Amino acid sequence: MIGSKARKGGKIVKSLRHKNGVEEFVFGTPVSTGAVVEKGRAENIEFRENITLGEPTLLTFDLEPEDRIYGLGEHLGSINRRGRRFRSYCRDEANHTEDKNELYGAHNFFIHVKDHQQIGYFIDFPGEVVYDTGFQEEEVFSIEIYGKNFRILKIFGDTPEKIVTGFLQAIGKAYIPPKWAFGYFQSRWGYKDQKEIEEVYHRFKKEDLPLEGIYLDLDYMEDFKNFTVSKERFPDFKEFVGKLKKEGVYLIPIIDAGVKIEAGYDTYEEGIKGKHFCLDGEENPYVAAVWPGKVHFPDFLQSKTRSWFGDQYRFLTDLGIEGVWNDMNEPAIFYDEKNLEEAVDLASECRGKNLNVHQFFQLKDTFANLLNNEDYHQRFYHRMEAKKHLHRDVHNLYGDYMTRAANEGLGKHLKRRFLLISRASSIGMHRYGGIWTGDNASWWTHLEENIRMMPSINMCGFYYIGADTGGFGGQCSGELLTRWFQFSAFAPLFRNHSALDTRPQEPYAFSKEVLEHSRSLLKCRYRLIPYLYSTYMKAVENYQLFFKPMAFQYPKEYEAVEDQLLIGEELMLAPIHKKNQSHRLVDLPEKMALVTLREEEADLTLAPAGPQRLSYDLDHLRFFLRPNQMIPLGEGKNNVSKLSLEKLEVLAYIREGGAHVFYDDDGISMGEKNQERMHITITPRENSYDIAVKKPHGALKSIDFKIINHRGEIQRIHYKIKE
Amino acid sequence: MIGSKARKGGKIVKSLRHKNGVEEFVFGTPVSTGAVVEKGRAENIEFRENITLGEPTLLTFDLEPEDRIYGLGEHLGSINRRGRRFRSYCRDEANHTEDKNELYGAHNFFIHVKDHQQIGYFIDFPGEVVYDTGFQEEEVFSIEIYGKNFRILKIFGDTPEKIVTGFLQAIGKAYIPPKWAFGYFQSRWGYKDQKEIEEVYHRFKKEDLPLEGIYLDLDYMEDFKNFTVSKERFPDFKEFVGKLKKEGVYLIPIIDAGVKIEAGYDTYEEGIKGKHFCLDGEENPYVAAVWPGKVHFPDFLQSKTRSWFGDQYRFLTDLGIEGVWNDMNEPAIFYDEKNLEEAVDLASECRGKNLNVHQFFQLKDTFANLLNNEDYHQRFYHRMEAKKHLHRDVHNLYGDYMTRAANEGLGKHLKRRFLLISRASSIGMHRYGGIWTGDNASWWTHLEENIRMMPSINMCGFYYIGADTGGFGGQCSGELLTRWFQFSAFAPLFRNHSALDTRPQEPYAFSKEVLEHSRSLLKCRYRLIPYLYSTYMKAVENYQLFFKPMAFQYPKEYEAVEDQLLIGEELMLAPIHKKNQSHRLVDLPEKMALVTLREEEADLTLAPAGPQRLSYDLDHLRFFLRPNQMIPLGEGKNNVSKLSLEKLEVLAYIREGGAHVFYDDDGISMGEKNQERMHITITPRENSYDIAVKKPHGALKSIDFKIINHRGEIQRIHYKIKE
Repeated sequence: MIGSKARKGGKIVKSLRHKNGVEEFVFGTPVSTGAVVEKGRAENIEFRENITLGEPTLLTFDLEPEDRIYGLGEHLGSINRRGRRFRSYCRDEANHTEDKNELYGAHNFFIHVKDHQQIGYFIDFPGEVVYDTGFQEEEVFSIEIYGKNFRILKIFGDTPEKIVTGFLQAIGKAYIPPKWAFGYFQSRWGYKDQKEIEEVYHRFKKEDLPLEGIYLDLDYMEDFKNFTVSKERFPDFKEFVGKLKKEGVYLIPIIDAGVKIEAGYDTYEEGIKGKHFCLDGEENPYVAAVWPGKVHFPDFLQSKTRSWFGDQYRFLTDLGIEGVWNDMNEPAIFYDEKNLEEAVDLASECRGKNLNVHQFFQLKDTFANLLNNEDYHQRFYHRMEAKKHLHRDVHNLYGDYMTRAANEGLGKHLKRRFLLISRASSIGMHRYGGIWTGDNASWWTHLEENIRMMPSINMCGFYYIGADTGGFGGQCSGELLTRWFQFSAFAPLFRNHSALDTRPQEPYAFSKEVLEHSRSLLKCRYRLIPYLYSTYMKAVENYQLFFKPMAFQYPKEYEAVEDQLLIGEELMLAPIHKKNQSHRLVDLPEKMALVTLREEEADLTLAPAGPQRLSYDLDHLRFFLRPNQMIPLGEGKNNVSKLSLEKLEVLAYIREGGAHVFYDDDGISMGEKNQERMHITITPRENSYDIAVKKPHGALKSIDFKIINHRGEIQRIHYKIKE
Repeated sequence: MIGSKARKGGKIVKSLRHKNGVEEFVFGTPVSTGAVVEKGRAENIEFRENITLGEPTLLTFDLEPEDRIYGLGEHLGSINRRGRRFRSYCRDEANHTEDKNELYGAHNFFIHVKDHQQIGYFIDFPGEVVYDTGFQEEEVFSIEIYGKNFRILKIFGDTPEKIVTGFLQAIGKAYIPPKWAFGYFQSRWGYKDQKEIEEVYHRFKKEDLPLEGIYLDLDYMEDFKNFTVSKERFPDFKEFVGKLKKEGVYLIPIIDAGVKIEAGYDTYEEGIKGKHFCLDGEENPYVAAVWPGKVHFPDFLQSKTRSWFGDQYRFLTDLGIEGVWNDMNEPAIFYDEKNLEEAVDLASECRGKNLNVHQFFQLKDTFANLLNNEDYHQRFYHRMEAKKHLHRDVHNLYGDYMTRAANEGLGKHLKRRFLLISRASSIGMHRYGGIWTGDNASWWTHLEENIRMMPSINMCGFYYIGADTGGFGGQCSGELLTRWFQFSAFAPLFRNHSALDTRPQEPYAFSKEVLEHSRSLLKCRYRLIPYLYSTYMKAVENYQLFFKPMAFQYPKEYEAVEDQLLIGEELMLAPIHKKNQSHRLVDLPEKMALVTLREEEADLTLAPAGPQRLSYDLDHLRFFLRPNQMIPLGEGKNNVSKLSLEKLEVLAYIREGGAHVFYDDDGISMGEKNQERMHITITPRENSYDIAVKKPHGALKSIDFKIINHRGEIQRIHYKIKE
């Protein structure tokens, strides 16, 4: 037990209380990560948890058999985090096998749920944190914090959901993308030039496939140099960007963390001149190799560097760009000179020898371990708050602060919303951009991981999230793409992305059937956008979850149901995530309405509570509407710009009566301009329903209600908005 | 269409008909693999399938949307093989991610199931065969056979099961292990000496854990040399073997394919003298490196080499050994001199350079690709039937023929049954040994893969099968081990095996709870052995499946249920294969009896047809008994030698009446000596049952029947055997 300002392990602890009851404990003199925005007031509070400061600091909790742990963000495995190991240390991990303990994000928020209480914790620390949630010892939850200077926030609440809300308030409102960011995006590493991208655009148009934008992977750059566009491959990039934008199609270029070392290259020259690069032990810019060969890494922890680098994005906004993805910003490092030289030396020593097994594997592994070797993190430094920090100690801030820089630069130049996602992240970055879940693969298990990962990431503050649909690495099948579409149709970020030399993965790259199914599913996505956007905006505003695990809503026996998810208060999803399955088992905790959505029609039937077998065609979306809930559907257009809200369809499952707030705005302005909140209530009467629509959306002329009651009877009501 | 002796692609085709209707087509002059034992009679039969001889030969089938494909043996993925790629080319694959198209076995049997017919095919060819079951083109099943000389068998039957039976008859009766091989085996790469193995044995004894044997990984050898035992680490191996065997505990040493090049080492010297090694292009023994450094590979395709190598096992049998595992026999190759030199040259060229991304990845991949590079297969030759064969062309026979050699040698010296498993295999080897599914990992998805893989392997002739329980690579948790035990408790081969430097994985290496649960589950396994052994022996004898997929038994809507399996005619399994799950959904195609089995008691309740949520504790086995079926249970002993059959418990679910044949024998003799077949029938009467036991087992004194009827009423009947 450590009281306020008590000493333990030689470190002073300060404690504060936030207005929503959050307790904050300051150990030593932590780096200001900027993750938490709420300020607390000093108050003498005991830190009752079992902590031993040291290298590493050890924080432990007893685990009862029934305890569960939620949160920790972007990690593989079950939603209930119990029983394995996780490492918060952003890593360029290209092979997401289930034993991987770290991915690209460092999300140190978790909720420890016990039988009759739950507490949320946030470890505000930019270095390595390792969680053992009962793997090594089944009854011990241990956390190793690799440092003595950090903050811990404790968040209280009657339910896990309320704890999430308290935490989200403490860390501040999440990034808001433009409405068009909810469209469908095509991407591929390997679209080599303007011609190929135009072909993609034309093919989507020809096939009547919705399309909101095309991501540009590093193929567009000149020699992998940030803030350049290959003149050869994109002779008039600005005109091209403008031409597509006129059709509602945005180009979203990639920016990598490393800056190529090349005399005469502006970003490099400015970076040197402005002392913007991370330094090695001898105060020279640190050299490592990534895509362009040797690079320097901008020191995003310096505010002057963020400001400088943010301004670099103007190169893109001046060309008409309104969205960017920041990549390789853990940062990924292919090799550095020291380790490469050692590897080459070792290889030379092996020449002509009869290597025994140990020598052989040492040789092989030495070359394999050049990639993203963490030794490199001991070799360069940041400057922050006039202090020097070894990279290793502040590692998890790197991608986060790069994305802050981008956000600030883009905001300054565009003065409206923009699309911004990052591969690396830590909590705090959620205010500046979204994340995609990195280099997954065309594996069925990765579709399942995608489903499970969404609520865990959402709890950590990130809302604009999604996985590379169809899988980045490996060979996708038409069936996998289609099934993945059926889930991503509900994710805020819906991007189909694949790696160089993998099988083409556009919806038209497979059979005629896959094309038809994809078209139908994408149109359904666009029908859902008014609802998804409304739900996103309300969730961010009210600090509530967009993706909610079953365990947060339903009793004990549904805790383990992790391949079903809730969206907002309205929906339950139960996607197919296995091969060759036309059915799956679904476990309904309560009677719900089953929605079968195709482009033209939405069917409603009742599904009883309990386990049941459900069929899924490849060309429809099926999901469940919870009791007394409704969702609005728009039209199946091919672009967000075409989505008028003149006509809505509302699907409702009404027992006692339902109320819904539909949010909309102009989709692009920053701030609270143009916000509309329409209130719809449905009250059952003897043979019909009373419908009230307050503050109807400005564009709206009518709503077609389709209402199912608890006996499965359906009524359609055409509701005209009075002018 | 190719008629008998018709020409196509310049090749003569001969056709034959076997007595059970199997059609055999001979293309060119195939290598005699020995896979098929039945002989056909020449008959003019058309080969109606679409085939184009060439390099590769292409065989294609149209796929209707409803078509399914079963078989192909040891491969990852769904039981219905539709929609992906598989490669029959035995490979030392250490990383079983779901995109891997080959593992250790080459099992070229499949059944193409169409709406109203199904045909089985066996491609009898020892080289590479690639299957695309509708991945590249959804409506085409294409098979590339890398050669023009092969046999194709077509097997007919009203049901997939009957086709399997026809195929199993054609390839001959499977390997029969001793009864003790159905016990529980502990294994670990890293048990370094006699002392450590004794500790394992004593710990099992102390903890009251069943144990039938301990596998010895390559730690026991002297410098990784086959047919040596380290004198230092095992000062008196023979005495040690004898001492443990007296306690019913067998030691099962590993034998690898490569023979260390070392002057004075007997096996090497004899191999050179007898011209037993594979030759390189210059007629010198081919040199490659594996565990011991440089080795030669015995040319198991020569019958004189099989006979010589088989005799080498006498070294082990003379020490009291009665079981062996053949490993690294794809064969695995770490590197050969040519590729290592090229890699070192490339590294030298890279010294001091600013490598671009392509150069860097080329360097890294060159070293990674030393391991099991298939280039090596173009560099050595076999002699067979007085002909020289490039290794690549007969690759899949290598592990198979090594195991034939071992089987013949062990049989000759032991003159009784022995335990023999192999990592590499092809069809034909099923008559000589079992297989374990190679280097899996401590992944939950690998438990699921294990469940799905069993029936596919079984269809290809192999019965003595199982996976490394708990996972070979990676870090196992107590929970995963326990859940895996709950499945492996039903697998003929039940071995817990783990790799060097992974977390210890013995049942006592985790918490007290895991130990207790493991004990309970292992005792349950021993209670099941009489049933499992009987079912195994009957299945082999009658050419029926031990593990049967749901799709073979139940209508269409259960096709996709691939995490439930049938055992024999009696049982359905539905194991938990996900983390943190105390429940799972189960889909029952018919009303069944749910058995809850603990060491001391077996509970019976009825479970209705349809989807339902089922709870699973960690210390019991749950499984379902089909209508009118029964299973015998023995006692929860710690060793097969302790299993008397004086008393049996029979669990039965009787509606109209049930009949069961219980097989037993002395468990060790070859041939048909000592076989007993007890016939039990249960006929319901008004308030009770008539029970008849014909040819009661010699040892049997009584049977305790526990019978549940379709109303869930349970009767216990104590049945005394008349002396």
